[in-house]
Amino acid sequence: MVIVVKAGGRVLAGNLDGLLDDIARLARGGGKLVFVHGGGDMVSEYTRRMGLEPRILVHPSGLRSRYTGPEELEVYIMVMAGLLNKRITAGLIARGVQALGVSGVDLGLLRAERKKRIIIVNERGRKQAIPGGYTGRITGVDGRALGRLLREASVVTLSPLALGMEGELLNVDGDQAASKTAAALKASSLVLLSDVPGVILDDRVLDRIPSAEEARRIAGLVGKGMNRKLLMAAEALENGVGRVVIANGLAENPVESALQGGGTLVEEEPRQ
Amino acid sequence: MVIVVKAGGRVLAGNLDGLLDDIARLARGGGKLVFVHGGGDMVSEYTRRMGLEPRILVHPSGLRSRYTGPEELEVYIMVMAGLLNKRITAGLIARGVQALGVSGVDLGLLRAERKKRIIIVNERGRKQAIPGGYTGRITGVDGRALGRLLREASVVTLSPLALGMEGELLNVDGDQAASKTAAALKASSLVLLSDVPGVILDDRVLDRIPSAEEARRIAGLVGKGMNRKLLMAAEALENGVGRVVIANGLAENPVESALQGGGTLVEEEPRQ
Repeated sequence: MVIVVKAGGRVLAGNLDGLLDDIARLARGGGKLVFVHGGGDMVSEYTRRMGLEPRILVHPSGLRSRYTGPEELEVYIMVMAGLLNKRITAGLIARGVQALGVSGVDLGLLRAERKKRIIIVNERGRKQAIPGGYTGRITGVDGRALGRLLREASVVTLSPLALGMEGELLNVDGDQAASKTAAALKASSLVLLSDVPGVILDDRVLDRIPSAEEARRIAGLVGKGMNRKLLMAAEALENGVGRVVIANGLAENPVESALQGGGTLVEEEPRQ
Repeated sequence: MVIVVKAGGRVLAGNLDGLLDDIARLARGGGKLVFVHGGGDMVSEYTRRMGLEPRILVHPSGLRSRYTGPEELEVYIMVMAGLLNKRITAGLIARGVQALGVSGVDLGLLRAERKKRIIIVNERGRKQAIPGGYTGRITGVDGRALGRLLREASVVTLSPLALGMEGELLNVDGDQAASKTAAALKASSLVLLSDVPGVILDDRVLDRIPSAEEARRIAGLVGKGMNRKLLMAAEALENGVGRVVIANGLAENPVESALQGGGTLVEEEPRQ
């Protein structure tokens, strides 16, 4: 049974040691985990240190994303597949875990289709199509190869990079990478950690969402970051993942706590 | 049978496509390879782009090396384990090879002892001891784990990083990493590629060095970069590597050509 955990940059910045302690405990107890990490804030920081100004795009949905030109892609690869991936992996090994750090490029684990054009809202508030840069939509995950790596390692630390159709390296969304990876591995659990306690609706954290269909419905009612997580959760459930938990990565023992009912559990309830 | 290939930064800058074509041909023909890459020039370039001036140390032997403080280490990890490792790996996959990029940190493949002090020659020409920074001497290679990764991949691209005794990430020498890796795998061949055609003595490229002992003797007669390669070649032979070839990475088909007699072959001749 495999657990896939995704944690964004704010969780890494605010609770890296707590998170690694927790992942290490699960791994030492015999668990097999894939840890997909984000790190957007750190990419922005290093982009600035390299003398580039990060370009943030506003989409018609209100979602914001980073524009990845060729220079931004270099920084993205360096920070994600280099600094963050190796620090996390070394931190797990120091905790007695057989950890292996890879990116979606390695063994062609993640394949993606480059976004040709992106529709954005420009500074005058008008919709505009711009070239997509080095950003991709994941089209395939090699679950077999990942499964074989999990025979050699208890934890595979996976950076959200993918190989494009022409062999180019692409930036892919971490939540999407985690969801598609969990589906390819038929993971028992997918845990999506961010800096909020779960799915919040009418000022209340939802304990439970009883179906993928319901997750899609609620996705239309929440903010844009959580919207994406809910759509990814629904897709994971529909593709054979046992359950998805959306939880607070800044909590104590964040993964264990999510698996034991903290946060919002998205799971198909048996029909009566 | 495993072949270990090491190529330094100048080979990567001058002949990356030729080198990857050649490695891919060997891998597609059924070979298993570990490709240890250097990249010092690129580390210096990005160190400058991050607003840091690379500090080059002069050792009493005349050898020069880069000083690795905490900030320099970050750049080293980003360039080596990030940008270079993933570009090389993607380039091999685009050529139809099952390639996996890792660093010496992953699975604890390379372990090193941090150099506490380094003796340098300061600007006034005096010997001086300075703190060693984040540089290590390799103390162990997990040949079993590497061997298992070579069941999943035809080529493992290995960045010269290692885990220190306290779980810290350390910069290690690429030639040393290649030699110790070849020994741990009992590789049939170790190919050390740089921008010169082989071991040059009295203006002539040596075809053959008939023993580890002789390699150590000649090491005392050549320049400092080649000195280190010869000592690493001798150590590899003494630890079960079939043969070592020191050859020109800028040549056509550099690995194939080295394996077929280009460059300087260091091999124990059967005693008569």
